[in-house]
Amino acid sequence: MTAPAPDTHTLASRTAQLLADMRKARPLVQVITNFVSMDVTANVLLALGAAPAMVHAPEESPDFIRKAAALVINTGTLSAPAAQAMDVAAAAARTHGVPWVLDPVGAGGTPFRDATIASLLRRRPSVIRGNASEIMAMARIAGLTNARGGPRGPESGHATSEVEDLAQRLARHALCTVAATGAVDIVTDGRQFVRLANGSALMTRVTALGCGLTGFIGAMLGTPNADAFDATVTALAAYAIAGDIAAERTDAPGSFRVAFVDALYRLTSDDIVQRLRTA
Amino acid sequence: MTAPAPDTHTLASRTAQLLADMRKARPLVQVITNFVSMDVTANVLLALGAAPAMVHAPEESPDFIRKAAALVINTGTLSAPAAQAMDVAAAAARTHGVPWVLDPVGAGGTPFRDATIASLLRRRPSVIRGNASEIMAMARIAGLTNARGGPRGPESGHATSEVEDLAQRLARHALCTVAATGAVDIVTDGRQFVRLANGSALMTRVTALGCGLTGFIGAMLGTPNADAFDATVTALAAYAIAGDIAAERTDAPGSFRVAFVDALYRLTSDDIVQRLRTA
Amino acid sequence: MTAPAPDTHTLASRTAQLLADMRKARPLVQVITNFVSMDVTANVLLALGAAPAMVHAPEESPDFIRKAAALVINTGTLSAPAAQAMDVAAAAARTHGVPWVLDPVGAGGTPFRDATIASLLRRRPSVIRGNASEIMAMARIAGLTNARGGPRGPESGHATSEVEDLAQRLARHALCTVAATGAVDIVTDGRQFVRLANGSALMTRVTALGCGLTGFIGAMLGTPNADAFDATVTALAAYAIAGDIAAERTDAPGSFRVAFVDALYRLTSDDIVQRLRTA
Repeated sequence: MTAPAPDTHTLASRTAQLLADMRKARPLVQVITNFVSMDVTANVLLALGAAPAMVHAPEESPDFIRKAAALVINTGTLSAPAAQAMDVAAAAARTHGVPWVLDPVGAGGTPFRDATIASLLRRRPSVIRGNASEIMAMARIAGLTNARGGPRGPESGHATSEVEDLAQRLARHALCTVAATGAVDIVTDGRQFVRLANGSALMTRVTALGCGLTGFIGAMLGTPNADAFDATVTALAAYAIAGDIAAERTDAPGSFRVAFVDALYRLTSDDIVQRLRTA
Repeated sequence: MTAPAPDTHTLASRTAQLLADMRKARPLVQVITNFVSMDVTANVLLALGAAPAMVHAPEESPDFIRKAAALVINTGTLSAPAAQAMDVAAAAARTHGVPWVLDPVGAGGTPFRDATIASLLRRRPSVIRGNASEIMAMARIAGLTNARGGPRGPESGHATSEVEDLAQRLARHALCTVAATGAVDIVTDGRQFVRLANGSALMTRVTALGCGLTGFIGAMLGTPNADAFDATVTALAAYAIAGDIAAERTDAPGSFRVAFVDALYRLTSDDIVQRLRTA
Repeated sequence: MTAPAPDTHTLASRTAQLLADMRKARPLVQVITNFVSMDVTANVLLALGAAPAMVHAPEESPDFIRKAAALVINTGTLSAPAAQAMDVAAAAARTHGVPWVLDPVGAGGTPFRDATIASLLRRRPSVIRGNASEIMAMARIAGLTNARGGPRGPESGHATSEVEDLAQRLARHALCTVAATGAVDIVTDGRQFVRLANGSALMTRVTALGCGLTGFIGAMLGTPNADAFDATVTALAAYAIAGDIAAERTDAPGSFRVAFVDALYRLTSDDIVQRLRTA
């Protein structure tokens, strides 16, 4: 059932082109994210050339979403009012045909969190992006497995290689693109499937870089003519390549964060074409 | 009706003096700001030598405001509870004669936001600081124009040159100082008017630097003997000069943010006198 | 009543060993902290090798706490819902025998804040960490003094030398370890007492580094076989030594924050043994 993966060169060219398209379009991205990631997500999006707007109130989301090119929802630092705000925004995005990406931070961690995420899944995200434990938990929430995921807080207890099949089944079930990120990233829409191999272990030592990546997926979803699968591959590949570049400049997380934001800002098509690696 | 603008040298001397006064006074500034800007606003104020306190609960604002030299209210990441907290704090500031500055992030964006901002305007801010779109929206909220502002989320869709007249009318109407910031910053109290020309385009690629600037205005308002117009000019001029200095050290936003905070900390009277430019 | 302080070399060896134990254990730390400190606290914990999880909702804290090795509660940016979330989490920590540390930011500032902190004190924290003004206010809240503390927002109006006796009485009264941090840090459990003399004044020019330190105490509390007193001494000593190292690299707060996170990540046993100073 799975289509053959495109060769690396084709993938890199498409990634470079879509990134350029996004920078040109400067999409306005509505972001509902956790308190830890607010700063870094906004800075990642600005460095990339997108226009983030952290708007979450149920009183204004339905108005604001009409102007937005895409919506990002991230379940970190969850609360009951936040869950309601997410539901209103996701429903409004569906009503107005605005694509949206779900980052189910901590999925599998508590019943409250899983119930919130189950509700969001019914609002039909265009993309789901999580670590392997979170994707495993999402598959269980969707009724596709009994495996429990077992995250350690926001960290994964699994490698993405363990969820390749589940990710594809989840994508087919939820009619969306699914990305599981880790040492190797995987992306699938249930038909297409790629493994991406760039990135640095230091990315796990800086808080909320995964949340920033989901923001980037939102910006790509808001780019004219980018379909959900290609948008997701572009964000993951470009982000991990910026990680490689930053890791060449420093070996510690404080300066890595700075170098990483700089690398996103400076990232060129050549960087992508020369560095993109699949697995 | 407008007073002649002071010459650049006079402006620079006054700015350098007031900044020195603020550093000596170390004003305690109560800040109610959005979640994106919490970190950078606090760091900007600490680097400048002020003492920020992020206190927002309606249960304690009326007690806390008595100790504060000034109050900052910023409407980013708005919610119904936040709107109520802002209203309580602004009312308490008026009761106790504490000057306050309003940063109407996203004004014109949604009816909910505009209604909140209209209520805050009735609490009589000492200073309003926004981008050109936000100042245009404020003028509409105040009944002075039918123009709608048209922000793209937190970004401006207009240049400050388009709102010079509106800013002056808004200042006269609301009996306050109005600042519109952009490539050129303008400040007016309805009688005095200046254009400031320092600053770097990289400042728009780091999140919440506008919010940090509003925090700085708060610190200047809390400085003994600084009137609202001079306080605002001082903050805008010194901030943009620090931006110039940081832009001489790097060309990318991650390292720019670091260099900018360093520049605020190190900023000297000589820097101000030698670099301040008007337009 | 007070035990003789261990000699500096013994203290340094124990500190180096416990830090190594923590890095090996990678404790999952549940953190309920203020919005200003979210980013830096998470980054401090990740740089040190711990696993922070910012989980606060009353709907999930009682479930989540069972997986956590320790809990951190910080009262900055307080609100009524946050106070309730803290109370539920602290109660759950006690029920499940999870150690927890209280950072009473702004204690003494307003009646609302003091009432919240009094309730938390009844939940029996394992450690209390504050500046001298906050520890003085805690002693008053506990009925041990009439002195009012007098903080300037989150800043201390006192030196730790002024609260040595009160800290020891508070530790005995509340059956916990008490740390007051400043130019000299003091730690006591009512029987043992040490003064630590590392650290840089630049640490007060970066927001929320005190909150990050309390997070670090949480990580040490979650380390197997670390008692509360030794855990606290380890966190304070290692943190201040990282401050010394960072201050050798820069003299301004923007770059200091970056260098400080790098220094925490790179900190070695040799650094601790060679640099630790008592007073």
